[in-house]
Amino acid sequence: MKYSKSTAIAPANIAFIKYWGKKDEVIRLPLNASISMNLSNCLTTTTVEFSKSNKTDTFALLDGKNIVNDNKETEKVIKHLDRIRKIAKLDLSAKVVSKNNFPKGAGIASSASGFAALTVAASSAAGLSLSEKELSILARIGSGSACRSIPDGFVEWRAGEKSEDSFAYSLYPNTHWDLRDLILLVQNTGKKIGSTKGMENAFSSPFMEPRLQGINNKITKVAAALQRKNIQQFGNLIEEETVNMHAVMMTQNPPLFYWSGETIEIIKEVVMWRAEGLDVYFTIDAGPNVHLFFEAKDEEEVLRKIKSFNRELKYILNKPGEGVKLTDKHLF
Amino acid sequence: MKYSKSTAIAPANIAFIKYWGKKDEVIRLPLNASISMNLSNCLTTTTVEFSKSNKTDTFALLDGKNIVNDNKETEKVIKHLDRIRKIAKLDLSAKVVSKNNFPKGAGIASSASGFAALTVAASSAAGLSLSEKELSILARIGSGSACRSIPDGFVEWRAGEKSEDSFAYSLYPNTHWDLRDLILLVQNTGKKIGSTKGMENAFSSPFMEPRLQGINNKITKVAAALQRKNIQQFGNLIEEETVNMHAVMMTQNPPLFYWSGETIEIIKEVVMWRAEGLDVYFTIDAGPNVHLFFEAKDEEEVLRKIKSFNRELKYILNKPGEGVKLTDKHLF
Repeated sequence: MKYSKSTAIAPANIAFIKYWGKKDEVIRLPLNASISMNLSNCLTTTTVEFSKSNKTDTFALLDGKNIVNDNKETEKVIKHLDRIRKIAKLDLSAKVVSKNNFPKGAGIASSASGFAALTVAASSAAGLSLSEKELSILARIGSGSACRSIPDGFVEWRAGEKSEDSFAYSLYPNTHWDLRDLILLVQNTGKKIGSTKGMENAFSSPFMEPRLQGINNKITKVAAALQRKNIQQFGNLIEEETVNMHAVMMTQNPPLFYWSGETIEIIKEVVMWRAEGLDVYFTIDAGPNVHLFFEAKDEEEVLRKIKSFNRELKYILNKPGEGVKLTDKHLF
Repeated sequence: MKYSKSTAIAPANIAFIKYWGKKDEVIRLPLNASISMNLSNCLTTTTVEFSKSNKTDTFALLDGKNIVNDNKETEKVIKHLDRIRKIAKLDLSAKVVSKNNFPKGAGIASSASGFAALTVAASSAAGLSLSEKELSILARIGSGSACRSIPDGFVEWRAGEKSEDSFAYSLYPNTHWDLRDLILLVQNTGKKIGSTKGMENAFSSPFMEPRLQGINNKITKVAAALQRKNIQQFGNLIEEETVNMHAVMMTQNPPLFYWSGETIEIIKEVVMWRAEGLDVYFTIDAGPNVHLFFEAKDEEEVLRKIKSFNRELKYILNKPGEGVKLTDKHLF
């Protein structure tokens, strides 16, 4: 067996049907299936090198020219390396260097792209040759929604009843539908509670049970709207779903208010634009950023509307993205 | 029987357990019981005069020195006069003049205080001598939550199964607990959908049924917290309830977003102030205004916090208010 250095690049993803709540905290089995799209322009690049010259595992997250140190994140990374070393029967320390192409603090979750890239780079560097399904399962154990950043394009994460059943697979390649996701970077206000912590209390909301009861039906409907490329069906479903999840979050104990003032103002703008005939729809994760979905043909008009709403608002424009890729592999 | 001119003054009220959804649209039977407090400083004064010299019914709503004409509102007022004339077996037209002490467009619903004052002034002017319960039932038929502005202080509206069972009564007089309700007048953004129209679609939310299932338990708990004057129990309950109702509204089809950006920013401020030890809690009706509840002893500190949050923000400070009162009665 050869030990090596590998680099992988993985996309962040945005869920249309959201992941909120686990049935197993340790191996991160979700309570419900979810559907997502990879983001072409929100990427993490991670290099893993196993070598005798590494005395311990090290993890460096590069933010521009700075190295961000986060002990909690480093601990998660080392735990994940341990899983991969165990499979590969490897006893070497790793040097891990990771870099996001989006600014830290922009509210783009980097754990999905981060753990997808880490899983693929580390497995490859450890000499493993895993299937997409195996990589997705492994990424999921590292950080739930990272499993969705493994396959290509539009993705479904099967909830599953045990670890081997809970993985993501591509519903459609990224070329299936020329959608846009314009992420509006809204400033966070108030105290940020992470989604891992937040979803532990999901059942303190009186609306969590009814949410779960309706969700398989929504999975079927979103998949059908994607197949038909029907922007109105698709858009109405993703908005209904995102407000449903935030309604659960807000009615938890303690309540989670992920929206900022600007979040709700954008929601109301979007509803007005649609009344004027523009097919633009929103979805929002566990943070204040608003993702606007529309078809390529409406890109210019949506950008015009956003600029007239708030010229200062920063954004990242995405197309449907490919899945994780190995970019190089250096054998010693 | 003598026909006369009467003037009544009635308070607006703010619900701790909200009224959202009717089981009978015509006679306004609510789906659930509610609990409210009269507002000492949000008042409608209405004078009704039945006279042979009136050729038709007229309704004038005075806003400062201007008369506001609203055909839909006038129609509702005339319908209500018809109910009272029918009971009194009276065949005279009325001149109705009404005045709020709060500015129109401040987002304070005037239909509760308006229909409570109208009911009492018109009944008296028509020579009727009705009990508090009868007046509450009559006000309810005019405009649902108006029934809660009839009795004194802290009030429960029994849902009831038929019209005679659905009325409000005083749980505690206004002197029971020296609470404050600081109404923060937040600017409305987006299109305003009235609560009458909005609640027609309550069951399009997947969360309406579970909301109703939990509500009698909440009624009991809020009444107990009021009895004990326990600000923390009381405050946590009213916040949980208000977010619960807004979660239903936002998940209706079409969704109702009554919050403005500033509404959510104030919510998050209040949560922070509380983490710093200040017992202040919010409730929000079908609009963007935020009602802050606290005890009299904390008034200065809350006002200081609000001013440092936004010096421009307008507000109305209330204590628990009395019920409707006849202020004069002129017999011909």
